[in-house]
Amino acid sequence: MNVRALVFDVFGTVVDWRGTIQREGPALPGLPAAVSVDWAAFADTWRAGYAPAMEQVRTGILPWTNLDGLHRAILDAILPEFGLESVPDCAREEWVYLWHRLDPWPDAIPGLTRLRTRYIVATLSNGHLALQVALAKRAGLPWDCLFAADLFRRYKPDPEVYRGAAAWLGLPPEQILMVAAHREDLIAAGRAGLRTAFVHRPLEFGPDRVTERPPVGEFDLIVTDFPELADCLGALPTQPSNSGIVSPASR
Amino acid sequence: MNVRALVFDVFGTVVDWRGTIQREGPALPGLPAAVSVDWAAFADTWRAGYAPAMEQVRTGILPWTNLDGLHRAILDAILPEFGLESVPDCAREEWVYLWHRLDPWPDAIPGLTRLRTRYIVATLSNGHLALQVALAKRAGLPWDCLFAADLFRRYKPDPEVYRGAAAWLGLPPEQILMVAAHREDLIAAGRAGLRTAFVHRPLEFGPDRVTERPPVGEFDLIVTDFPELADCLGALPTQPSNSGIVSPASR
Repeated sequence: MNVRALVFDVFGTVVDWRGTIQREGPALPGLPAAVSVDWAAFADTWRAGYAPAMEQVRTGILPWTNLDGLHRAILDAILPEFGLESVPDCAREEWVYLWHRLDPWPDAIPGLTRLRTRYIVATLSNGHLALQVALAKRAGLPWDCLFAADLFRRYKPDPEVYRGAAAWLGLPPEQILMVAAHREDLIAAGRAGLRTAFVHRPLEFGPDRVTERPPVGEFDLIVTDFPELADCLGALPTQPSNSGIVSPASR
Repeated sequence: MNVRALVFDVFGTVVDWRGTIQREGPALPGLPAAVSVDWAAFADTWRAGYAPAMEQVRTGILPWTNLDGLHRAILDAILPEFGLESVPDCAREEWVYLWHRLDPWPDAIPGLTRLRTRYIVATLSNGHLALQVALAKRAGLPWDCLFAADLFRRYKPDPEVYRGAAAWLGLPPEQILMVAAHREDLIAAGRAGLRTAFVHRPLEFGPDRVTERPPVGEFDLIVTDFPELADCLGALPTQPSNSGIVSPASR
């Protein structure tokens, strides 16, 4: 592979939306005291609305709507299911911003830090740019640049997203590796001419819905985590230096 | 001012195109041995073609062309003036990439590093995205995100560029501060509703064309360099820490 840039899916691949919502949910504003919420189930239900909502945008049923807008609409629809219909409007706005504060998987930053020494590393997310900036700034994700759905006004898996990122990077698609924990994203990236790396995040959807590793050969690379991806791509462990970056191996 | 994000002009404001071309010019490939070049004059002439070329795109005389394309067309036009018409085609391609390797002004990285601790810091450049990625990666410019002309398919001072960046950041224009060494860029940003900070780079065009400081009050802020901008905006000196970032004051 003659790869120059890596573009990453973000939700589920870089950040752990389910774990974060499970941890942070109980501290959300406007929660009625009397209601006990299963936050893992709540996260799953909220996330389950995501693909159908984007599909409505992709097929033109809804006009262009960013992920804050979709998350809000889904939230309004699911709150009654959890006895939370009394959560006031202003608090619902805050709940939507929970998706701007998701924690990365523990291996994400060490892996990206290594990969960045050798490759351009960028997001290629269905989240919008403001959300990507918020995630990256809060967690310290070391991106070289951010590609987000609102730059294209399209959602993955539309081919324009993958091809558009290649055009803006000034690279032929085959010099770009799409990294994701989701088969459909990688299949679409591959159809658009990009190389593909599957990162296995078995617990993205929780212990009751463990995702399987795809069969060998379905994608260019299949790895367990970002450091393994860095190993595969020859990105050496970062050396301790005056810049103060700590080698993942010495942490 | 209730500023949340700073967007920066790049050529002349963050990086020193003239100084870099003067230093790097003699090492460019394909130079005829017999020709002695005044590299400062060459840089000035190349840069002088920039505004008229963009104007042709802005007014629709030329179709959308990124800065590599414009730099190449200007280069082809000016080489004979310097006795360099024999520089071969393949070398000319390399010359254009000199604009991807410009050095930052010495205060740029220390200032940005401080500003980034408190604000979103982004480019808002007429260079294209691939060029911004190359500049940032080579020099270690610590941007949170990159806005570049090809994301808008428009050049500054078109208002769509300033307003587009605000929309993608999810911020009202008045919460964004445009930072530039050029009056016309800031005047257009101000008209689009952004706040404005002029950074005085008196030597951008060389010692024979020293630029003047604008009168007090023309822009929201007028500063000498990026650390002074950080002082004005309350971005404290970065403390030495485990992250190894060195305080500008202790350098």
